[in-house]
Amino acid sequence: MISREHCLAADARDPLASLKSRFSLPDGVIYLDGNSLGVLPRSARERSLEVLEQEWGSGLIRSWNTAGWFELPGRLGNKLGRLLGAGEDEVVITDTTSLNLFKALAAAVRIQREQAPQRKVIVSERDNFPTDLYMMQGMIDFLQQGYELMLVDDDHPLESLLDDSVAVLALSHVNYRTGAMYDMAAVSRLAHRHGALVLWDLAHAAGAVPVDLNGAEADFAVGCTYKYLNGGPGSPAFIWVARRHQDRFWQPLSGWWGHAAPFAMQSDYQPAAGIRRYLCGTQPILSMSLVECGLDVALEADMQALREKSLALTDLFIQLVEARCGQHPLTLITPRDHAARGSHVSFRHPEGYAVMQALIARGVIGDYREPEVLRFGITPLYLGHADIWDAVEVLRDILDSRSWDRPEFRQRASVT
Amino acid sequence: MISREHCLAADARDPLASLKSRFSLPDGVIYLDGNSLGVLPRSARERSLEVLEQEWGSGLIRSWNTAGWFELPGRLGNKLGRLLGAGEDEVVITDTTSLNLFKALAAAVRIQREQAPQRKVIVSERDNFPTDLYMMQGMIDFLQQGYELMLVDDDHPLESLLDDSVAVLALSHVNYRTGAMYDMAAVSRLAHRHGALVLWDLAHAAGAVPVDLNGAEADFAVGCTYKYLNGGPGSPAFIWVARRHQDRFWQPLSGWWGHAAPFAMQSDYQPAAGIRRYLCGTQPILSMSLVECGLDVALEADMQALREKSLALTDLFIQLVEARCGQHPLTLITPRDHAARGSHVSFRHPEGYAVMQALIARGVIGDYREPEVLRFGITPLYLGHADIWDAVEVLRDILDSRSWDRPEFRQRASVT
Repeated sequence: MISREHCLAADARDPLASLKSRFSLPDGVIYLDGNSLGVLPRSARERSLEVLEQEWGSGLIRSWNTAGWFELPGRLGNKLGRLLGAGEDEVVITDTTSLNLFKALAAAVRIQREQAPQRKVIVSERDNFPTDLYMMQGMIDFLQQGYELMLVDDDHPLESLLDDSVAVLALSHVNYRTGAMYDMAAVSRLAHRHGALVLWDLAHAAGAVPVDLNGAEADFAVGCTYKYLNGGPGSPAFIWVARRHQDRFWQPLSGWWGHAAPFAMQSDYQPAAGIRRYLCGTQPILSMSLVECGLDVALEADMQALREKSLALTDLFIQLVEARCGQHPLTLITPRDHAARGSHVSFRHPEGYAVMQALIARGVIGDYREPEVLRFGITPLYLGHADIWDAVEVLRDILDSRSWDRPEFRQRASVT
Repeated sequence: MISREHCLAADARDPLASLKSRFSLPDGVIYLDGNSLGVLPRSARERSLEVLEQEWGSGLIRSWNTAGWFELPGRLGNKLGRLLGAGEDEVVITDTTSLNLFKALAAAVRIQREQAPQRKVIVSERDNFPTDLYMMQGMIDFLQQGYELMLVDDDHPLESLLDDSVAVLALSHVNYRTGAMYDMAAVSRLAHRHGALVLWDLAHAAGAVPVDLNGAEADFAVGCTYKYLNGGPGSPAFIWVARRHQDRFWQPLSGWWGHAAPFAMQSDYQPAAGIRRYLCGTQPILSMSLVECGLDVALEADMQALREKSLALTDLFIQLVEARCGQHPLTLITPRDHAARGSHVSFRHPEGYAVMQALIARGVIGDYREPEVLRFGITPLYLGHADIWDAVEVLRDILDSRSWDRPEFRQRASVT
């Protein structure tokens, strides 16, 4: 059986261990929710004061030029692109994942409208991240042109829905609830073979697992920067568009920042060349600037080393929970197969909500997702093997003592 | 003739003079561009560190509840609503002005689609803020349902275009270039008399002039918080929807934050009741939190006193420029009529671009807008009469000495 000493020894050998010092983590907390909101990079304090006091306070309007605000979405997008297998000028940081999904979906719909107008079905999964489905529904409902959303249920093969009515296949690379990961290249090939375009949501993948968008010949991708990329609460999201599609159409959220000549104040929209046409309105410069702090730490880590550590830690977590909490009604819903696993691990428990509140009260912060799911994000940038051991020990104690069984842990908060 | 001493005496009597101390202004600068990007409230430093270190760094995911992140768009929206003649739960702070315009326009289009489907024209002005026109064009082009945009040219009466084909009249309350202001109540009545809904862009009005959305019986309004409201570069925008329209339809940018039960993780979108359905994705919490710093100063000022001072300063500016720079080819394009003037003043000059660069080099920061327009934002929260006197004196000197006539002042920057 693995002991805490084994874990400490593994940590001593960890080539990524030093990266933890780049983050400011609260005392007494084991943070297993970096897949929901990442942690604070130490460099963010200085950077935020610089943006606030120098760029805004002193530079004022001049900072659009002198502080490079106008270039920020593309400059940071290029940095992020290195983690996603994207080329230069293929990614911009902007808006929210929901909005970027709308842009990408609209572009895909327009491409199909021209090349295969009978394709009016958007295929996704019932278990996809809800806001993705809501945006698809919003677009379909507004267009009123006979588009429809077809949702695959768990364990139903995707291929059964892919026929010549399908315009777009829109999936999450890593499932937000289960942590299950698709083979992006294989699924993209499958979609293309059936004439569909493929749109990937990388919210639970970017910075967490190796991604190779161009290698997979994907068409569109979106995602967020506030989870594994540690960009800060609600930091702006990103969008990637394959170069072959970039200049084909303009997307309908066509604001000034995506205009070919944004300062000519023309009354007609003319899209900028390339990925910049996916920009829309003025971006929150302070929140966007801090994205760079988290990105820079992620770029220092070797992605293969990060992936190896992620798999080692998620394996360890599963193994310890099953060994030490095996008599409790916990059901693993995350794939054991490495190739099909992202960087978080989820177990169902009939009292999942209360168990998670009890964990949080003891400083082990994961999160709860309907239905009954205890979700634990395992972020190798700042977690070690001993953290996993300690977290499982708290879980074991809570389950053995039934200390989750208290009214205050059953009380639902407004935001869970 | 007015002297600098007269100006100093007026400043000594100014009941709003003390508010200047709430802002951090760079030395050696007279800032006449608060209509483009407002200045830094002194409280923003402490608040940003609190959000960064306590809310994000220590609170982490818990801050959605404990720091009230989930309530932020509505709580700040209610504060802002007091400046706009809006009721409780009629305004949210979120996304960008461009995106909020898309949401409002989509909602208006849906209302008309149901009640008057033959109405397919959106009327605006050729001189409206370009991004507003771009968003209208983006929607029309994507919908492909026969909608069209008709643009009124300067001095062409709006009424001539308002017939029973018009679905929506979309205007800026204060024109970004000229500073001309519409009578919101009269124009809203005119639109309604012709069966059109009216959508106001308040970007150059919110915090600058008294606005009474409910009093004017407007239908929709959007605007930004980073100009006269001093929310910070690219701080999130706002949207107001008249209560009578709020629950009629959902707008197509229907993300998780606008869902009736956002944490139930349902696969079907169900809009929240009221204005919350105009929220979409996760917001940039740091940038949004700082909106409150500027709002709190604006709420301390009496809006009527602010308006009186704004008119006094814009009158003074016009009077001094005409008296002291009268021999130069400057043409006032801002209305002299108080009822038709916002809070900025614009002059055309054939060498406007170079003149503005020369002014900026001397610390008088206004901005240039195509074509040939020198634009000066007059923000009474932190400007006094002597500032206006000093700014005009620099302008006079630059024009008299022709010191604008240098290659470096003709060189166009990437962002103007």
